[in-house]
Order: sequence, then structure tokens, then C-alpha cells
Amino acid sequence: VTQNDAAMACLSERAKNLLAVMSVEEKIGQLHQAAGGRSKNLNSKLTPEELDKVRRGEIGSYLHVAGAKELGELQKVAIEESTHGIPLLFAMDVVHGYKTIFPVPLGMASTWEPAMWESASKIAAEESTASGLHWTFAPMVDIARDPRWGRIVEGAGADPYLGSVMAVAQVKGFQGNDLAAGNTMLATTKHLGVYGAPTGGRDYGTSDVSERTVHEIYMPPFYAANAAGSGSYMTAFNDIAGIPTTANEELVDGVLREDWGFCGMIVSDWNAIDELRNHGIAADRPHAAALALKAGVDMDMTSEVYKNDLAEAIKRDPSLMADLDLAAGRIITIKEKLGLFDNAMAYHDEAREASQLLTPANRAEARKAAQMAAVLLKNDNNALPLSTEPQRVLVAGALAQDALTQLGSWRARGDVNDVVNIIDGLKNNAPEGIEIDYVVGADPYNDDVSGLSDLTEKAANADRILLVLGEHFDLSGEARSRSDLEIPPSQQAMLQAAIDTGKPVSVILVTGRALAIPEVDAGADAILNIWMGGIETGNAVADLVYGKVSPAGRLPISFPHKTGQAPFTYSENPGGRPADPDITKDTNRFMDLPITPLYAFGHGLSYSSFEYSDLSAASNQVTADGSIELSVQVTNTGDVAADEVVQLYMRDKLSFVARPKLELRGFKRISLEPNQTANVTFTLSPQQAAVYKSRNNWAVESGELEFFIGHSAQDLTSSQTIEITT
Amino acid sequence: VTQNDAAMACLSERAKNLLAVMSVEEKIGQLHQAAGGRSKNLNSKLTPEELDKVRRGEIGSYLHVAGAKELGELQKVAIEESTHGIPLLFAMDVVHGYKTIFPVPLGMASTWEPAMWESASKIAAEESTASGLHWTFAPMVDIARDPRWGRIVEGAGADPYLGSVMAVAQVKGFQGNDLAAGNTMLATTKHLGVYGAPTGGRDYGTSDVSERTVHEIYMPPFYAANAAGSGSYMTAFNDIAGIPTTANEELVDGVLREDWGFCGMIVSDWNAIDELRNHGIAADRPHAAALALKAGVDMDMTSEVYKNDLAEAIKRDPSLMADLDLAAGRIITIKEKLGLFDNAMAYHDEAREASQLLTPANRAEARKAAQMAAVLLKNDNNALPLSTEPQRVLVAGALAQDALTQLGSWRARGDVNDVVNIIDGLKNNAPEGIEIDYVVGADPYNDDVSGLSDLTEKAANADRILLVLGEHFDLSGEARSRSDLEIPPSQQAMLQAAIDTGKPVSVILVTGRALAIPEVDAGADAILNIWMGGIETGNAVADLVYGKVSPAGRLPISFPHKTGQAPFTYSENPGGRPADPDITKDTNRFMDLPITPLYAFGHGLSYSSFEYSDLSAASNQVTADGSIELSVQVTNTGDVAADEVVQLYMRDKLSFVARPKLELRGFKRISLEPNQTANVTFTLSPQQAAVYKSRNNWAVESGELEFFIGHSAQDLTSSQTIEITT
Repeated sequence: VTQNDAAMACLSERAKNLLAVMSVEEKIGQLHQAAGGRSKNLNSKLTPEELDKVRRGEIGSYLHVAGAKELGELQKVAIEESTHGIPLLFAMDVVHGYKTIFPVPLGMASTWEPAMWESASKIAAEESTASGLHWTFAPMVDIARDPRWGRIVEGAGADPYLGSVMAVAQVKGFQGNDLAAGNTMLATTKHLGVYGAPTGGRDYGTSDVSERTVHEIYMPPFYAANAAGSGSYMTAFNDIAGIPTTANEELVDGVLREDWGFCGMIVSDWNAIDELRNHGIAADRPHAAALALKAGVDMDMTSEVYKNDLAEAIKRDPSLMADLDLAAGRIITIKEKLGLFDNAMAYHDEAREASQLLTPANRAEARKAAQMAAVLLKNDNNALPLSTEPQRVLVAGALAQDALTQLGSWRARGDVNDVVNIIDGLKNNAPEGIEIDYVVGADPYNDDVSGLSDLTEKAANADRILLVLGEHFDLSGEARSRSDLEIPPSQQAMLQAAIDTGKPVSVILVTGRALAIPEVDAGADAILNIWMGGIETGNAVADLVYGKVSPAGRLPISFPHKTGQAPFTYSENPGGRPADPDITKDTNRFMDLPITPLYAFGHGLSYSSFEYSDLSAASNQVTADGSIELSVQVTNTGDVAADEVVQLYMRDKLSFVARPKLELRGFKRISLEPNQTANVTFTLSPQQAAVYKSRNNWAVESGELEFFIGHSAQDLTSSQTIEITT
Repeated sequence: VTQNDAAMACLSERAKNLLAVMSVEEKIGQLHQAAGGRSKNLNSKLTPEELDKVRRGEIGSYLHVAGAKELGELQKVAIEESTHGIPLLFAMDVVHGYKTIFPVPLGMASTWEPAMWESASKIAAEESTASGLHWTFAPMVDIARDPRWGRIVEGAGADPYLGSVMAVAQVKGFQGNDLAAGNTMLATTKHLGVYGAPTGGRDYGTSDVSERTVHEIYMPPFYAANAAGSGSYMTAFNDIAGIPTTANEELVDGVLREDWGFCGMIVSDWNAIDELRNHGIAADRPHAAALALKAGVDMDMTSEVYKNDLAEAIKRDPSLMADLDLAAGRIITIKEKLGLFDNAMAYHDEAREASQLLTPANRAEARKAAQMAAVLLKNDNNALPLSTEPQRVLVAGALAQDALTQLGSWRARGDVNDVVNIIDGLKNNAPEGIEIDYVVGADPYNDDVSGLSDLTEKAANADRILLVLGEHFDLSGEARSRSDLEIPPSQQAMLQAAIDTGKPVSVILVTGRALAIPEVDAGADAILNIWMGGIETGNAVADLVYGKVSPAGRLPISFPHKTGQAPFTYSENPGGRPADPDITKDTNRFMDLPITPLYAFGHGLSYSSFEYSDLSAASNQVTADGSIELSVQVTNTGDVAADEVVQLYMRDKLSFVARPKLELRGFKRISLEPNQTANVTFTLSPQQAAVYKSRNNWAVESGELEFFIGHSAQDLTSSQTIEITT
């Protein structure tokens, strides 16, 4: 089969039949995605003139739209009044919930529980589809190792293995088993390429990484999402070493479609096709259209380059007609898979929309997610949970009442009025004898610290201070790159004021990125990082603070001591002079910092304690196509029921290229009662140690792999060596 | 010709003849470089037992040795008492001077005057060879864009074009026209590969950059040095995307030897061959030997892997014998080129050694270099030079008397007692009427700020304060990576104390890296960055401060506002959403910083002022093999004679890959009297716009190139468009 045969085989019969009768203009129309409104003012552009465009077949999809009724009426126009009756595709950035907002993705990743993220995505799909939507621009699976990058909040953190598992969970959650079920949603795995490593962490910048890193670090979640059936992909805004992914034929048509056999649809990011001119690779808009279409980008998000300039590009190069047919055919095929040709009105049941959003069950799941996402970074002298003895607790910090921040970046239809904020959660759930007082203290939105005198005053009557501090919602997210990873000055000042009272200070940390918080670590007895916890944040915080639930979230990225320590991962190559704590040796380290981060990848404390047996192997010799089985016994040796995240790391000791010091290759979140023991087994394939050689060519080498079990990447308890034979 | 034929053609007849009669052990001996002492205790290991090794032909070269007499005696043993009489090669890190220490390399780069650096290298060669040395491990041409990396002090900064010009200057200066002249020295262009981009700026770490960046950014200075005849190269410690350069056959034997036709010798870095085991690519020492030798590394610096384990490697793989012959043959050939077979004693003339080191002429050249290297970063209200009116100047800061710091990293035989420190220079050269007082203030070696009260006290009697602050010598250099680009706390405190006196504060900045000094910029009226200026620092500073000479150094790397702004270059790709000062737009920037650095690449002020005519072109259409000629008229419009550095930048507006926003493609440092005008012409080749496609395959495209003339990368005055036709 030729490549074109393979591509044609991805199209449905209906799509092929339609292509045979559609005009060039109608085909181009399918490739055009228009904004039906603004992200904060949905449907606002759906004017009568816009409906005429739908009738003429000039629109393939809308984003920034919602509503069972409104979109149902729009869909009827497409189906009943356009020449070929091709339905529209309705899209929205439903990233971590639609109406029931879950923790931000970086928080969801901290659950280290794919079943939780799958469930959250399923709920998001049920709610979104009840509101007439078919398609979300999630999951974002961009590996991010530099917390200066604002969009780190939208992904699963620094690790390709964790990221891959979480990508699969989201795809399964959104799409279910049947895209036509009416309550499942087309996923968009994004942003294909290497969006997460812009130079200096500045959003949209060049990712100048090696080919090996492209394929070993950034591509695995995209690969995993394809294996899980992701129906669409979005290309990244930025360039890899000069090639914008929106025009990267080798990566898009080559790796994703040809090598991996992806059959679905690919959409550009917002205005990105036109921006190929800014990149300096397209001379004009028709040129931009040709580059993107040739690369394999089917749908043009809002730039109108396909809509207005693809015809001219085809005039210049008639061979583009074949690409146009494929693109239009893929879009029509995905519409068919969503059931839109046969039962489009499944998405427009107003009764369902009225009853199935923000249900108590959905809220309960969001509360559970927020509990699971929280990472206990520090807990000296068991400062948390609060003891049940009667006590007066002063909660301080404007973030405690900031509902908007808990919705985080991309909040879809999330409403601040539906958020249980932290102070309400703590008050409403307070056990008898615990008196909660509150002072605003300092606000992360400004430098006003006048409220700190109130804090000092009220603290005099308190037994302890619970400080809610960190970054507000608008300091992370798209285009929210920051040169400074410290908490804002007002938050620093509030911390110092609290410490100065002499009362014990515990901190609830609110953030959408990894932060450099050495002074919080030094000054607080406990730090509970809740990220931005979604609609049930306050209740979840209460559950954790009052000890109803033990925290068991784990960091999906390390927290640095200082801004200048980033980027840093546990997974770097050792180098010829591996980092050594002995500063008199010349090694791979900073002279002014420890060789480890403030909090390591995988770190997270518990209210309980766990003991691990030595790691054991079913067999110490495995063939390359065999399977590696490793087990460990885990016992809850503490006094409370708690979850534990058991982590398995790998080291390939000898290869033809340097391999990372450690690579995560398995994890399991388990729940154990006090004194309960679980046997945790990991089954791996030697393929998981494959080393990239060249495109579509990976080597599984014979030799020794060392596996480590541990509590974090920096706290390993035992190891096992397995020999791979080929 | 086969590759082996080409390689054999690089060997001299004498080398071939010797190879025919040498034993395997003797050949291996040539490949071994031993430490003849410690870097601070030269010759200390040259024991009678060591001489026996020389007699047995077990040593090819010594480093950490010096002295016309001592090395002459040692050489006689090799020539007269070893079986084949093959002379030894004596090496030292003579980086920015031997006895007459010049400014640190980053300072030399700031002269933007290759003739100056050529002259400094020539003097270094004359002095070194008078002391019996043949070989220096310089120039270091590693492009460095992240000032956290401590070795940034050793190179020419961030730019491949500036770096290439300066690489050529140093090779020419060290080697002259005849390596056998007796007063010229074999250069080592180092560290082949991408040593200057370790992850996070941590020395020895992985450089994970794209292939394009390897070849377009990091390789050009190596290429230029080869064209200039560099007789040897050193491979880098670190790996590029997993491949340690010491074992990188494609880059070493492939690109350098095969593609570029390099005929000389390649040496490893200190212990680096053994460290291939730490990298995880060598199973044992014989394996490490095989990897390095196959890659093309001829000489083993001190790891004794070749010496002790290459024989075993050859047993395992007899094909290595051919590589051994080539390596030994290249070493013997270079010894011959240095005249060591015919006139080894030219390097051991004790009278010459006694008379030709640290001559007044050499000192004068070092003073000129320090003048030329200084960069006037800021000069509000013409605070510098000091007016000739009588005034009392309080000089403050321990660095003003720290002679060691002015010698910088790698000081060869530089002696603190020979350094004119800053305070002595200012006192000794003070014009009549200028009274210099001095207070130590605060010391960058510690946090003791007790001396600041003295500063405050003495300032009361002063008209102005001249603050000498910055980093001491040991904060930059090998293994001196830092997570923090701010000046040490004691220096910050001293700045604040000086500002608090209310007296005008000018700053003499001492540093071996680009720093984040917003508070110095805000608090001082003038900042003169002298880097670490070498043996004549104090005199040069006096010349500049008192206005005898106008500063005209230019930054070879930008200074960031904050640590977290690095890495940053003027030369990044524009991206689809180029950085915009308007913070309400979503563009490639930080939200918490301006889009420009604190001081741009190419920035540097003058005591005079210059006006440029519009840039003009001899022809606006040039064929790909033609030549581009651009001219500008430059007039000194100020009141004093001064140098100006005219800078030419290029922008390739459209290519098949995104091209940098700007690329330096020419510069000229000129001296002009007041009202004098010069016509500055740049002749370029369209080849200078070639774009990397794949190994040894570069494209020169037809289309428009835009050229800009300016005072810095951020201060462009006019442009010209040239069309390249193919």
C-alpha cells in the first residue's frame, strides 16, 4: 500500500461518497473552524449572517459555543439547510471539568491515580455533551520541566511515563468505548510536538531539544494517547529547532500518521496557520495554507487561512487537492464516528442538560479528586492533621476566599458561585471544639500588606495559624510565563508576619506550578500543597486538615530551591562527573545549592507510615519479548487508613548512549488500613527500556536493567537487577 | 581515496617510518599524557621513577610542567635515552597569558578587536615557549548563553560569529605562521562538541540541543579555528543528547576530520576517557579506550586508560591497531611540526626565559587590552570620566585590592605580586586635585558587612563614591556553576550603604559572567564593567576613570534583569507570536519582565558620541557565489577621541526553517578623533547565510537578506535589503 492508500483507508465510505460530490469550496469549508463566540461570551457571534455561512457549507466546526438548545438549532441548520447536510462539530476547551470543575491538570497528575483522572474526564464529557458539545481540546500531554512556563499547570508534569499513563486515562475518560454514545466526547491530544520546552520557559518560544529528547521524552504521551484511540490531535504553536509543528510534515504526517497509524483528525492551534508567516517560513497566506495542509493539519482553528487562501494555494500547486480530500474526508469521518450523521440530536436533550450538570455525585467525585491531588510537602511533629483537642485556629490569606483561583486556568462553564472556597470549607466542616477565625492578611493580586497588622492582632488569640498562600489563578496558564518562581512579595510578607507571631504556622499552598519556596519550608511546620483544587476545594481541604482523609498526592515535578535551579529533573543523564554532595569535587552541580531539589519528583508525605519489603523478581532473566515481573509487600505501619503511592524506577546501566540516572516505569496508588499489607506487582515489558536510534527505529538491548522501588525519586528503598537476553 | 588513506596522508614521513619500527607499547606510550605536577605545583611529579618511564617510551606528553631548564633536561632524556628518541610534548593551560596575564577571555571578547586578542595570544606564546612549553589548551571557543555556567568566563560569549572571529585570532596569535619557530605554540581549540550548553547551566551536564543548533551555533568557532590551522583540538567532558563527545565518532572523526579535513591531533579532557564509564556507555576501561580511540581521540589526558587498558582493547578488537597507528602518527607528526625532532632546545633557552617574560612592552599590551575590554554599561549625566576639578573620591570595596581576582580563572604563571590592583592604579595615576581615599567596605568572599560603617563614615568627607563590587575569581570558572546571577549579599549591602550616603555612586563592576544587577543599574549613576582585567587592571581602570581613554568594550552576552531571564539571546527565532512590549497580548515573553535584557548583546557606551549614515550597498542583487558589500559612514560627534564598534546584523526573512531574528555578521572597532569620519565597509559572502540541512550539507537560498547597522543588537540605526539570486 502506498501512503495515500493507507490514508484513504482511514476515511469512511460516507466520507468518500461525499467527497465525490462536494465542491472545492465545500471541502475547504469543512476545514474551517470558526469562533462561535469569545471564550467568556459563548455563542455571541452566531448571528443570522453566520447561519448563512453554515447553509453555504463554509463552516466545519465551531469553538466557544455551548448549550443543548442553542447548538441544536444551529446543528439543524447545517443538517437540514446546507447542500450536503454535513453536521457541524462543536468544540470547547473542556480541560478539567465543564461545570463540575476538578483540580487543575497538574493537580490531577498529582493524584498518581489514572482511574481518578479517567473518572473526572468522563464526568466532563457527560456534562459537556449534555450541553451540545462534541469535542474538547484536551488532554494536554506536554511534558514540562521548566516551571517558568505558565502552561505547566495544564499538563501532567515532567515525566514521560506518568504523562503517558495520564494521557491514556483522559482519552479513555473523554471518549469511552463509543464516540457515538452521545455522552462521550472526542478528545484532542495536544500540543503535538515539543510545546513544553520553550527556550527559557517563555511561552510560544523555540524548543531546541535533540531528536532523542523529542522522541524519548516529549512524544511518549502522544504515542500512548494514539494507542488509546485519541480521535484528534492539535499541533503546537511553536517550532522545534526552527520547524513549527504546524508545518512539520515529518512529525505530523510522518510520525503520527505513517509510523503510528493514526487515522483521525488534526487541528491547528488558535490562528497558528497564519502565524507561520511570523515564524518566517511562509511567504504569504496561501503559502502558509500549503505548508500546514501538506504537513497534515486538517482543520484551521480560526485563522481563516484555509477558508480564504487555500484555493489560491491549490491554484499554485494542484497536487494539494489530494491533501484537501484527505483533510475533508477525515473531518467528515470523525463527524460520522460521533454519530452526527445519524443521531445528532443526542447532544441536544435539554432535560438532560438541566439534570446532569453539577450533580451531587459529580461534586462528590470532584471532592475526592481534590483530596487525592493534595501533596503534603512537609509535616514536622505531625502538625497536620489538626488534633481533635479544642483549639482556636486563625486562617489567614486572601486566597482562602478566592473562589476564582480554585477554578484555575481553563474553567469552561465553571462558576465561582459554585465553588466551596477554603475558608467556608474549613468553617463548615470544623469538628466540635475547633474554632475558626479568619483574616484576609495579604492578597497575591497586589502588594498591599496593610492587612498584616490584623493578622498579628488576631493571632494573639489563636493557638495556631493556618496560612493560605501562593499564586493566584492568573499567574499560570497560557502566556503566563514567569521569570520568578518565588511566591509574590505580599505572600512572602504574610508568611513572615505569621512566623513573627511565634504561633505554629501551617501552610495551605495554592499554585499552578512548581515554586521555589525555601522560606516557606523553613518557616512552616507543615505545608499542604493543594494546587488549585476545583469546585470542591474547601471541602477537600477540610477533609485533609481535619484528618478525615490522609493526603497521598505525589509531586509530578520537582520543586526547586531557587528559580535558577530549574530546569532540573531526577531523570537527567549522569554525565562523566555525576553530581556529588561533596562540594570540593568538580561535579555536575551548582556551587551555591544542594544537588537535590527542595522537594523531589514523586515526593509526598502521609498521616500514616508504610514499610516496604525488598523488591523481588519473578525471574532475573527475561528475553526481549518476555515480561518482567516485580513485587513488593507494602504495610501500613501507622495508626490511620491511608493511601500510598508505590513507585518503580529503572536504570539502564550500559547502552550505546548515556541513559537517564533513573526513569519512572511503574506506580500504584493503594489504600491500606492500619497494619494491612498489600502485595504490589508490576508487570513490565523490556520494550519499556527501548532506546531511540532513529525515526521508527528503537533498540531493545541485552544487558542489565536495575529496578528500584521507593517513596520518591529521591527515596529509594531496594532494588533488583534483571538481565535482558536477546 | 578511502577515509583511511586521507587520514594516513596527514602523517609525516618520519611518523610513518617510526610507526614501522615501534612496538605496540611504544605507540600507546605516545598516546599518554601525564601530569608532571599539580596545576599549582608544577613539575612536582617528575621523579627519577618518572624519568624511567620516559626512557621506556611510556609518555607522550606532560602537562602541569614549566621551566626552560627543567623541561630541557627532561626533553634530553626523551631524545637521548629513549629507544626511538621521540621528543616529549609539554603542555599547560595558558589561557589568557602566561606570566603577563591579560583580561579573562570573556573580557578579551568584549574588546571586539581580534587584533588585540591575537596580540595577547602571541605574547602568551612567546612567554610560554621561553619557559619550555609547546602546547596550550586554548582557545576555548565554547559558545555560552547561560551565565549560570561557570566556564562562561573562559570563552567569547554567546555569539557564533563573534566567537569564530575570536577563535581565529587566538589560533593565529598562538601558532603564528610557523609552529617550528620556537616562539610559537600549538593551540588546542576546545571543547569540541557542545560543552557550553549543559542542562541548567550545571557544568559537565548534558547538552540537549538540536542537531541544527549543534552545527549552526556551537560548531562555527571550531570550523573557523580549523580553517585558521588549529593544530589540535580537545573533546568536551559532556554528552550531546547522550553521546559523550569523547566517544562521538560522527563528530570527531566524522565532522572534524572527514568533513573539514582536519589533520592534527585530538586530546581528551582531564580523565575524560575513564569517565566514559560514568556516562554509562563503557562497560570497563578497555571498552572506554576502544570508544575514544575509534571516535578519533588521539591522546589520553591523565586517565591512563590508553596506557593501561588499550592493549586489552586491541586484544578484543584487533582492528583498533589501525586507529592506534593513526593516533600515534598524528602525535609524532605534530611534534615534528613543532620542530622537536630537529631543534627541541629552541624551547629551552634560559637567557630568553629570563629576559622575555613580563617585559614592559608586554605589560603595556596587557594594559591596552584591559582598557579595550572594559564595557561602560551605564553613564548618566556623564558621571564618568571623573571631571578634572579637584574632588575627594572614596573608593570602596575589597575587590579594589584583590589582586588574585584580577588574574581570573586559569592564571598560568601569573603572580598576584605582579598585579596592579585597582586601588593602587587609581592612587598612582590620580591627576592633580583628585584625592583618593579607600575603604574596604564589604568582601565578596564572605557575608561580613561590618566594614560598611567605615564606608558611611568616610563618605561624609567625600564628593563621590567609586564602588568596586562584583564576583571574586572563584565564583566563575570550571565547576563554578551558580544558580544565582546576582552579586553576593555583601556586595548588595555595600551598594545599599553607598546609596544611603546620598553621595553620587559610580560602580566598577568585577565579574567573570553576565550578572543580574537591576539594583546596581537603579542605584549607580555609572557602571564600568571591567570583568577581571589581568595584571594591569589598576592602571587600565585609572586610564578609563580619569578619561585618558574612552571605554569602547561591547558585551559579548546580554545581562539579564533576573536570574530567571537566562538563557536569553538577541538571536532567538521569532516564533509565531514574537515578543511584544504590550503585555495584554499573548506573546513570547515573561509576564513579570520587559522583553529585553537589562543590557543587550553588543551594548557599551562611550565618552564620545557617534553618528551613522544610512547603510548603503554596492549592489542590491548578488549571486550566491558573489560578494555583498555594505558601507556606512561613522562620525565622532563628541568632544574626545574614542573607539566605536560598528556592528552589522543580518535577518533571513524567509527560509524552509525559522531563522533567528538577528544574526551578527560583521563588526569593526575603529578609532576616531572628534569630528573625524570613517567609511566602514563590510564584505560578506552569501555563504554566511547558509542554513544547515544535514551533515556537510548547507543551503544558500535565493531571496532577501536584510542587513542592519547599529550600536548593539537592540539599537539598530538603518537597514539594507540584498537579494540573493541563485
